Amino acid sequence: MDAITAHRSSALLTDRYELTMLQAALRSGAAHRRSVFEVFTRRLPDGRRYGVLAGTGRVLDAIEDFRFTAPQLDWLADQRVVDEETLRFLADYRFTGDVHGYPEGEAYFPGSPLLTVEGSFAEAVILETVILSILNHDSAIAAAASRMTAAAGGRPVIEMGARRAHERSAVAAARAAYLAGFAATSDLEAGFTHGIPTTGTAAHAFTLLHDSEKDAFTAQIDSMGRDTTLLVDTYDLGEAVRTAVEVAGPQLGAVRIDSGDLTLLAHRVRRQLDELGATDTKIIVTSDLDEYAIAALAAAPVDGYGVGTSLVTGSGHPTCAMVYKLVARESVPGGELVPVAKRSAGGKTSVGGRKWAARRPDRDGVAEAEVVGTGPVPAELAPHLLHVPLVTGGEVVGREPLEAARERHLRARAALPLSATQLSRGEPVITTERHAG
Amino acid sequence: MDAITAHRSSALLTDRYELTMLQAALRSGAAHRRSVFEVFTRRLPDGRRYGVLAGTGRVLDAIEDFRFTAPQLDWLADQRVVDEETLRFLADYRFTGDVHGYPEGEAYFPGSPLLTVEGSFAEAVILETVILSILNHDSAIAAAASRMTAAAGGRPVIEMGARRAHERSAVAAARAAYLAGFAATSDLEAGFTHGIPTTGTAAHAFTLLHDSEKDAFTAQIDSMGRDTTLLVDTYDLGEAVRTAVEVAGPQLGAVRIDSGDLTLLAHRVRRQLDELGATDTKIIVTSDLDEYAIAALAAAPVDGYGVGTSLVTGSGHPTCAMVYKLVARESVPGGELVPVAKRSAGGKTSVGGRKWAARRPDRDGVAEAEVVGTGPVPAELAPHLLHVPLVTGGEVVGREPLEAARERHLRARAALPLSATQLSRGEPVITTERHAG
Repeated sequence: MDAITAHRSSALLTDRYELTMLQAALRSGAAHRRSVFEVFTRRLPDGRRYGVLAGTGRVLDAIEDFRFTAPQLDWLADQRVVDEETLRFLADYRFTGDVHGYPEGEAYFPGSPLLTVEGSFAEAVILETVILSILNHDSAIAAAASRMTAAAGGRPVIEMGARRAHERSAVAAARAAYLAGFAATSDLEAGFTHGIPTTGTAAHAFTLLHDSEKDAFTAQIDSMGRDTTLLVDTYDLGEAVRTAVEVAGPQLGAVRIDSGDLTLLAHRVRRQLDELGATDTKIIVTSDLDEYAIAALAAAPVDGYGVGTSLVTGSGHPTCAMVYKLVARESVPGGELVPVAKRSAGGKTSVGGRKWAARRPDRDGVAEAEVVGTGPVPAELAPHLLHVPLVTGGEVVGREPLEAARERHLRARAALPLSATQLSRGEPVITTERHAG
Repeated sequence: MDAITAHRSSALLTDRYELTMLQAALRSGAAHRRSVFEVFTRRLPDGRRYGVLAGTGRVLDAIEDFRFTAPQLDWLADQRVVDEETLRFLADYRFTGDVHGYPEGEAYFPGSPLLTVEGSFAEAVILETVILSILNHDSAIAAAASRMTAAAGGRPVIEMGARRAHERSAVAAARAAYLAGFAATSDLEAGFTHGIPTTGTAAHAFTLLHDSEKDAFTAQIDSMGRDTTLLVDTYDLGEAVRTAVEVAGPQLGAVRIDSGDLTLLAHRVRRQLDELGATDTKIIVTSDLDEYAIAALAAAPVDGYGVGTSLVTGSGHPTCAMVYKLVARESVPGGELVPVAKRSAGGKTSVGGRKWAARRPDRDGVAEAEVVGTGPVPAELAPHLLHVPLVTGGEVVGREPLEAARERHLRARAALPLSATQLSRGEPVITTERHAG
């Protein structure tokens, strides 16, 4: 086993039942049956018109880092989570199978086969939890972020929700937001880890620390230059704008408004800045914005939006309903793959068999259907297949720069029908058709 | 600087503006002013009757681990986030101030001064983001968890939401749920890191992997013994229960139902189990439960609940609205502390001054008010003060076992008026009174 620290290992980010299933399957011999698992969702969050796949890059890291360290194995033994045979399997564990799926940033719909994991049951089943954790979280954030950047038109949107989310999920949220078109993040770790541009200047505390607002603005300008952003709503807004331009001159980069009726205040501050000659000074607004508030500010003289809580909480939908289901497995070792599916009356049923997916365009190139099938791919759909190889024989082959996923998302969104980016609640913007193989 | 790995360092889990404020304050000299920051919330989530403070233990770790590694400092320099003087400050950074606050697991209300951080502005301001990330996340989960365990009465509730949350926030969620009375978690990392009991046996995939349900059940019993939990809703529920008892005998530990009308099915399965002589076999239900669904199952023959999505998403409220505000600072270096507060017309105002808090009981010992003041503490409230010391002169003094917070939460909840645990929407169950000092 390569040296991998407990902090980097993803192996225990796993539900206990994955390992107990593994143990029982090793005992019964079924663990070695070739198996196909698929990630998909039965529905989009209520009212949403498209989903955005995010987290694939992090999934590839998690698969590579899925190794058990000695302290982890000792703990599993000590807690009697699994037996000796299973511990030996885990000590040598390394995924050797294949993964393919939708590329990161792509849009998706109910039933889209987002990720296909193929290998022995043993090696594939235990990846379930960490794969779902990553995709369900990151895709929920990306879907909300995509609505926000669409609502913002060309204006930049900045992610600043770290304080409203678990400290590590905030980093992944910044990544997902950037993928969906955000311009920057406040989160330094997201800059350090993922290379996302970071931004930020000062909070109310900085003004309160100084003996006067003027002292505070002077200190900030002295330290950061005139091109900085001054926060102008600690005391009286009009006075603060006057002081800001007095201290910085008309070259002042921007002012930020973090409370109040933003439409009204943006108009008032724009007028005041213009009267003071600060016609190039920008206005950034940041108070509890979501995609609806952003859209409502479209006609206001605003140059950029900062979004916190609603971004990191997925704007009402903090997770997706993606599942990881066994859809096919060897009939007997060495035999052929047979489709399998839950079929109880209570619901949560699925469709068996390994699937392909294509997004069929109409004659104008606009997406008109998500076609999902299990048999041979019709020739006319071959150019529109969605899956790409991600892991081949255990080796990651699908890693790409985050910028690539970011560009793909903008292309994918632009190829959907126009109503995709309507904020009102609706049905998925294209339907998913099952192709009888 | 002690050796601290980038993975353990909490220093970059920080909004960029904390460091730019630090730089400007170092330049102006105000950075060295003694300052008091408070964490509080202006409101509970809509309709909730009490909050639950969780994450304090993780905050103490984050304060200890708030050290900048060489690669982090190099990155900050390379990205020109801050200047040379600030980098030198960060390289030597170690919090030397004091922290006190509500003990973990305690209930709270709007305006409760949950955590007080006192030190120089420089050393205290940069802790804002990571402290809020942890408390806002963990307290949101604990509040939801507390409603669920109250709804469940004495029946055990198991946390199994890892797959619906960011992989690391899931671990913190399991911790917060345990603190609020959950019996166990599915998340192995939560067991490894926090010592929480873990549980789990098998998913539908295990049944689908085998050639028949009987083969699957036999494999599971062979491997885990008769005291295991068999999942009975992959194909036909009635047949599965019959097969389960046939294979395991009446000593079968439990069956799990993961889909369908759980009240109806629980009654049906209980009757069937009893008829088969498996009168001690328990019934566990796990399909999209929240506190309302748990309460609705109170009269059903159910022995335990598994909760996933709604737990890790805070049952509709995935974050809290806690803020970290400067409430007092030295007037001039060496001078006395003066209260400070934002006071613009736009909202988000706060009350200046360092605060104490007490929960005043009525003559029956039931909480009747949260009293918050800035002056001397009235003698009759002294025995009911809520703050405990957490960090003194930079040394953590408030660390405690998770079990202590768990016991405290149950005591604190029991001391609230009975209507606290009503699930219907309402006002905070006690009011917060300001004591004029």
